[in-house]
Amino acid sequence: MIETPYLLFLGDAPDQLSAKVAQGIKDWRPENSVGQLRLPGCGTDIGLQDMTLAEAKAAGAKTLVIGVANRGGIISQAWKDVLIEALEMGYDLASGLHNLLRDEGDLVAAAQMHGGTLHDVRVPTVGYPIANGIKRTGKRCLAVGTDCSAGKMYTALAMDAEMQERGLKSTFRATGQTGILITGHGVPLDAVIADFMAGAVEYLTPDNDEDHWDMIEGQGSLFHVSYSGVTMALVHGGQPDALILCHEPTRTHMRGLPGYSLPTLEVLRDTALPLAQVANPACKVVGISVNTQHMSEDDAVAYLKDVEERMGLPAVDPYRHGAGRLVDALASI
Amino acid sequence: MIETPYLLFLGDAPDQLSAKVAQGIKDWRPENSVGQLRLPGCGTDIGLQDMTLAEAKAAGAKTLVIGVANRGGIISQAWKDVLIEALEMGYDLASGLHNLLRDEGDLVAAAQMHGGTLHDVRVPTVGYPIANGIKRTGKRCLAVGTDCSAGKMYTALAMDAEMQERGLKSTFRATGQTGILITGHGVPLDAVIADFMAGAVEYLTPDNDEDHWDMIEGQGSLFHVSYSGVTMALVHGGQPDALILCHEPTRTHMRGLPGYSLPTLEVLRDTALPLAQVANPACKVVGISVNTQHMSEDDAVAYLKDVEERMGLPAVDPYRHGAGRLVDALASI
Repeated sequence: MIETPYLLFLGDAPDQLSAKVAQGIKDWRPENSVGQLRLPGCGTDIGLQDMTLAEAKAAGAKTLVIGVANRGGIISQAWKDVLIEALEMGYDLASGLHNLLRDEGDLVAAAQMHGGTLHDVRVPTVGYPIANGIKRTGKRCLAVGTDCSAGKMYTALAMDAEMQERGLKSTFRATGQTGILITGHGVPLDAVIADFMAGAVEYLTPDNDEDHWDMIEGQGSLFHVSYSGVTMALVHGGQPDALILCHEPTRTHMRGLPGYSLPTLEVLRDTALPLAQVANPACKVVGISVNTQHMSEDDAVAYLKDVEERMGLPAVDPYRHGAGRLVDALASI
Repeated sequence: MIETPYLLFLGDAPDQLSAKVAQGIKDWRPENSVGQLRLPGCGTDIGLQDMTLAEAKAAGAKTLVIGVANRGGIISQAWKDVLIEALEMGYDLASGLHNLLRDEGDLVAAAQMHGGTLHDVRVPTVGYPIANGIKRTGKRCLAVGTDCSAGKMYTALAMDAEMQERGLKSTFRATGQTGILITGHGVPLDAVIADFMAGAVEYLTPDNDEDHWDMIEGQGSLFHVSYSGVTMALVHGGQPDALILCHEPTRTHMRGLPGYSLPTLEVLRDTALPLAQVANPACKVVGISVNTQHMSEDDAVAYLKDVEERMGLPAVDPYRHGAGRLVDALASI
């Protein structure tokens, strides 16, 4: 559990894309951030108030979150100066970088001296159990994709936000680094030991009120040979009541796998649903989320209409048209 | 890579069942063991010559392998006396125990002093890559089960032995602790970090001669919600050309999951084959291996005949009737 609110560290990020994590936090949990901290030469601005460490501290910030990717996998001295000053002022630090805060001796020493916590969200800190498969109370929705990076996290966050707005009970359950930094907690599933993956998902989505929905962040794809085992653990450990199929129609091959073509939405449905029904016989596919960012509005609308007719399910791009119809579809469960 | 041949340490094992690992080594790699070492009170005998550390050393033994489960997860002082003496004499130690040799300070100290290696085969020692899905040369066979512990390792070992006997090119590829101790190398797949599971299987089964078969040890089951992610990584990382379906007909529910019934062999076939064809479109289901240990000979024969007719594939219990017909079936690939 990472203490909120955050001050978002943008460092010397060259562009908007490298500040993806900070942008995600600002878009999905604006209440979690008091401001942004930029170094000289920073080429991005996520639209929060610029603050010094002292100003943010006065505004209540508890954790300095590294909201950008670092260049070349090295935490530079310019960054370190700020990170150490933050620890001296009583901040915790949180990071999803590949190179870990805990591997930097000077950060570890400063954290120890000042009682701060270093959160490396890529590394599990919990001893997860082996999954027991016992049916849990409450409802769960899982997004599964024809490929990786097809919009599964965005879909779950958008559905959760829509549920909240309607006053319905919902919790976004993060399973990746960005999701964990957005919400302050979750399971870094791709870093969990194989035997405990499904148990980690069970741990993440415990018993809950009968009318509460967990919106579980998907990972990988059942059709992506590098990561399909992680997806499988979500399908079985998550015991989903509802599946949302996610697709990016302009992709010509599986991400990072030039020799592999994408499955159709029909094949994804016919593969994922029976597997999910092993853990939850009542599971249904309730809707389709299409990432149409590389299509014109007209093409997107026509594509969605076609998919909706073919599949007999609501098909939307939640970014373009909102997640309302996907949330409506949960009512059938 | 664990140096062979071994001296098999049976300790004070109360019964035959607790010496399962030693028995497996003796059954499948008799050439790897020079003898057995038993402590007073040992209630088992795997039929090797009893030897002292010195006698086995003289006979060429390089590694003392703990071939038994320990009671209560504690490495007793009686065991330690032998293990330390072995290190002093120049042995390496190998163990698949849950509690690790490397966590015992006195063993670590003795190993350092005498230049011995402590092999804890539950712990990966290689930084495995992320799977790249690129088609490899050579052939691969994977056993998949309706449940865990349905005979997958036994089937792969029996098929490998039959291939060797026929002078065909075959390698058993171990993916679990027992298999690794039997052969001296492999990947402890259930202990690998999620993101690297499929890559570890690719690493284990590299390019090979076109007429060489890897007999890959299966793990878990696509239908066992605790471990299905591990199985999925084998199905995709292994790129199998041939699948063998494994089944234990008398089981009333999935192992450790009282609420879960077993799938039929038909459902296993129809689930595993399309998933395997994602990584290798040419994959086929070639045979069925049934563990009939809890059935009479008549019942077993009748059951196998029925399965064979129903499924249109050779169905055998390799323990009862040999793996010959399963190896014959590979010829169709």
